[in-house]
Amino acid sequence: MRTDCACPRDISINIPAESRPRLVIIGGGFAGLYLVRHLCETDLQIVLLDRNNFHTFQPLLYQVATAMLEPESVANSFRKIFQKQKNLHYRMVDVKRIDPEDKVLMTNAGCLHYDYLVIATGAKTNFFGMRDIAKHAFFMKDISQAIDIRQRIFSNFEKAVLTKDPAERERLMNIIIVGGGPTGIEIAGAIGELKNFILPYDYPELDFSKMRVYLVEATDRLLGSMSIKASRLAQQALRKFSITFLFNTKITGYDGKSAYTGDGEVIQSAMLIWVAGVIGNIPQGLIGPDVNFGGRIKVDCCNQVAGYDGVYAIGDVAAVITMDRPNGHPMLAPVAIQQAENLAGNLTAIIEGHGSTQTPFVYKSPGVMATIGRNRAIVEKSGFSFGGFPAWLTWLFVHLMTLVGFRNKIIAFTNWAWNYLSYDRCMRLIIPLKQRNRSDEEDGSK
Amino acid sequence: MRTDCACPRDISINIPAESRPRLVIIGGGFAGLYLVRHLCETDLQIVLLDRNNFHTFQPLLYQVATAMLEPESVANSFRKIFQKQKNLHYRMVDVKRIDPEDKVLMTNAGCLHYDYLVIATGAKTNFFGMRDIAKHAFFMKDISQAIDIRQRIFSNFEKAVLTKDPAERERLMNIIIVGGGPTGIEIAGAIGELKNFILPYDYPELDFSKMRVYLVEATDRLLGSMSIKASRLAQQALRKFSITFLFNTKITGYDGKSAYTGDGEVIQSAMLIWVAGVIGNIPQGLIGPDVNFGGRIKVDCCNQVAGYDGVYAIGDVAAVITMDRPNGHPMLAPVAIQQAENLAGNLTAIIEGHGSTQTPFVYKSPGVMATIGRNRAIVEKSGFSFGGFPAWLTWLFVHLMTLVGFRNKIIAFTNWAWNYLSYDRCMRLIIPLKQRNRSDEEDGSK
Repeated sequence: MRTDCACPRDISINIPAESRPRLVIIGGGFAGLYLVRHLCETDLQIVLLDRNNFHTFQPLLYQVATAMLEPESVANSFRKIFQKQKNLHYRMVDVKRIDPEDKVLMTNAGCLHYDYLVIATGAKTNFFGMRDIAKHAFFMKDISQAIDIRQRIFSNFEKAVLTKDPAERERLMNIIIVGGGPTGIEIAGAIGELKNFILPYDYPELDFSKMRVYLVEATDRLLGSMSIKASRLAQQALRKFSITFLFNTKITGYDGKSAYTGDGEVIQSAMLIWVAGVIGNIPQGLIGPDVNFGGRIKVDCCNQVAGYDGVYAIGDVAAVITMDRPNGHPMLAPVAIQQAENLAGNLTAIIEGHGSTQTPFVYKSPGVMATIGRNRAIVEKSGFSFGGFPAWLTWLFVHLMTLVGFRNKIIAFTNWAWNYLSYDRCMRLIIPLKQRNRSDEEDGSK
Repeated sequence: MRTDCACPRDISINIPAESRPRLVIIGGGFAGLYLVRHLCETDLQIVLLDRNNFHTFQPLLYQVATAMLEPESVANSFRKIFQKQKNLHYRMVDVKRIDPEDKVLMTNAGCLHYDYLVIATGAKTNFFGMRDIAKHAFFMKDISQAIDIRQRIFSNFEKAVLTKDPAERERLMNIIIVGGGPTGIEIAGAIGELKNFILPYDYPELDFSKMRVYLVEATDRLLGSMSIKASRLAQQALRKFSITFLFNTKITGYDGKSAYTGDGEVIQSAMLIWVAGVIGNIPQGLIGPDVNFGGRIKVDCCNQVAGYDGVYAIGDVAAVITMDRPNGHPMLAPVAIQQAENLAGNLTAIIEGHGSTQTPFVYKSPGVMATIGRNRAIVEKSGFSFGGFPAWLTWLFVHLMTLVGFRNKIIAFTNWAWNYLSYDRCMRLIIPLKQRNRSDEEDGSK
C-alpha cells in the first residue's frame, strides 16, 4: 500500500519541533477555519494544510460564477486570517495519503507526523460515474471553477455573435443547470437576471427570445430538502425569468453540445452546469471497513473516525451517524461551524487532561435559505418558510455578516449595492488563463 | 504570402452589410477606445476587434501584479463601455494578417473587408532576442501577466516556508526587477512596501533581512526619460525600502534561478520581472520597406501608414516621424489619446467630403508621472519636477479620474483607501488557473 505513494517519504515538511502535541488539520473550509479559531488558547501546535492559500466562502461562489462579485471578495488568505494566531503553522500542500498506523501524512512537499488529525476536506462534485459529464460539464465547488463558468458564459456569447449558423448560435446561448437544490436555484436566478437585464444590452445583435435556460431536477420539485411551500415560492420566483423547468428528468449524458435525458430527449446547449450532487472528499489511506459511508467518512457522535486513535473528521466530509440521524447531517456551513466548535471543546478537554468528559455533537439548525435574483429569497426555520423581499434582506444580512474579513464585507456590499441600483454586473471579463506568461511575446530582435 | 495564412479565407465574420463605409480598428487600448468614442457621431460603420473582451487600464497593471487591486478594477468590458454607441460592432477575434491590397483582414474567426483601417495594437515586451529571458522572466503588459506575477510572488513565499535549504529559501524570497523606467520604479516601490509592511506579518517564520529586491538599470540613473532631479527623487524614495540598485548593469541571461549580468555577476532569484523595454505589436501583412521603424509602424504627421491607402496607426505601435521628432513620440497614454482625437477629426473630415483639410498631429504633453509606495510620487511637467506627498495626491487624482467606469472608480478608491489606512494588501490569493475545471473531480461511483 505504501509503495504507490509518490511523495518523498524521507523528506519531512519544515515545521519546528515542539514538546507540545501536534494537531494537523487538512482543509481550511468553514470546519477547519472555525476549529483553528476555537483552539487559539489551547496548548497545541496546530498545523493547517490546504492546497489553496485561501479560505473560500462557498455560499457566494455562484455570484462569482455569474459576474456579480470578483473572486477576491469571497476568498481570504489564511495568513491574513490567522496573522495573530501564534500556535498555528499554515502550509500550502496537497495531502496525498494518510498513514494512520504511523500517524504520518504524505504530501507533495514531504511527510508530516501528527498526534491528532482532523480531516476537514469538504466535498466535491459527484457526477455518479458519468465520465462524459465529468469531462464536459461545468462544476462550482471552488473559485477556479466559478471563474471558469463566468468566463465561459461570456465567451459563448462572443462566439454566438460571430457565428452565422442559427442552430449553433442558439446552442451557444442556451444554458442547462442540473440540480434543483439551493445552489441550482441560486445559479438559475442569477443567470435569469443576466438574461433579462444585462445580456440583451450587451448583445443587441442577438435575439434573446431564442435563449433558453433549463433547470433540470430528478425529483418532482425544487428544494427537495425544504418544505413544499418553499418549493412553490422558489418556482414562482424563478418563473419571472422564464426558466424552463424539467422535473422528474435525469441527464444521462453530455458531450459539450447536446445533453441527453433519461427519456431520450436531446437538449442543445454549449454549457451545462452540474450541481446535482456532492460527495465527501475522502483522503486516501483510511482503510477501515466502515469508514466510507455513502461517500463520507463515518464518525461517532464526537466526530472521531471509528477505529483510528486521534483521527477526527468534521464538515461536509464527515457523517455523524446516530440513532436519530441514520444518514448524518446535511452538508451545510452551520453544521461544519458547530462541529468545529464542539470538537475544539473536546480536544481542549483531552489536552487539559480531562478527556473522559467528551461532549457529543448536537446540531442546532439556524434555518436554511436560498436567494433568487435581485430581491427574492426563501428562508425556512423551524418548519416556517417565508419568501420575497423580507427573506432577501435576511439573506443579505446573514451573508454580509459571515463573510470573512472587514474589507471583503465593504467590497462585497459596494458591489451588491451597485448591482442592485444599476441593474448591472461588472465582472464580465474573459481573462485568458495562462500559467506562465510569455506565449504571445515575440523575439524582439527581428 | 497568402497561402501561409491559417485563417479561413472563405468565411467572413458576421457583420451586417451597410451602405456606409466600414472602419475597422484593431485593438481597444487607449488609442482604439478614444477613437471609437470620438467617432460616435460620424457616419461610419465601426468594427472594433480585440482578442480580449475588455479594455485594460495599463498604468495600474503594476497594482494588480503587487496585490493592491483586483483585476476587475483595471479592466472594463467593451460591450459595457460602448453599450450606447449605435454605429459600433465589437468582435472578440485575433487578427492574424492584414491584406492591404484587397483591403481584407484575416482573423481566427474568418475574414473581414475594410474601407478604412486603424492599427492600434499597442506594444509588447521587448526582450531583445534573449530567449532564456523570454522563457523564464515575468512580464507585465496585460492582465494575465500581472495576475501571474501576483500569484508567483505569493507561491514563492509559500515554497520558501516549506524548504529546509537556506540558499533555496533566499532564492525564493529575492526579486529582480530589470528596467529603471516608470514601470520599474512603480513595481519596485510596491514590492518594497510588501517587503516592509505585509510579508513579515504573513510569514513570521522567514527572516526578511535575507530578502533582496534588486532594481537593475542599464544606464546610470532611474527614469532616464525624465530630468536628473526626477531621477534623484525616485532613488531617494526607493531607498526607504532598501532596494538594491544595480546601475550600468545589463542582464544577459536568466534560467529561472540565476540571473547573469554583462559583467559576469550571478544573482540568485526565483523571480525576475522584465520591464526593460517594449516594442510595437505590428500585425503581419504590411510589407512596405519603410513600415517598420525601430519596432513601430512609421506613419506620417496625420498617422497614415506610408504607401497604404486608408490605413492608419495610432498609439504605442505608431511612430509619427517628423523633422523635430526623428524617433517619434514616447509610448504614453496621453499620446495615444491625443492621436485618437486627431485621427477622429481627420476621418470625419474625409467622410464628410472635405478630406483635403487634414490636421497634422501635434502632441501637447500633460506631464509625466510615476508613483513610489504609499505616499510618494514624481511628477514632471514643462521641465519642472516635484515629488513627495503632493505629487502622490496628483497621481492619485489623475488615475482615479481617468479610470474607465464609475464602478471601477468606486472599487479602486475603496481598495486604495483600505490599503492606505490599514497598511494591508487584500489580493494575496493564489488561484489555480485551469482552463477547464474537472482535473480534481473524481469518479463518484467508486
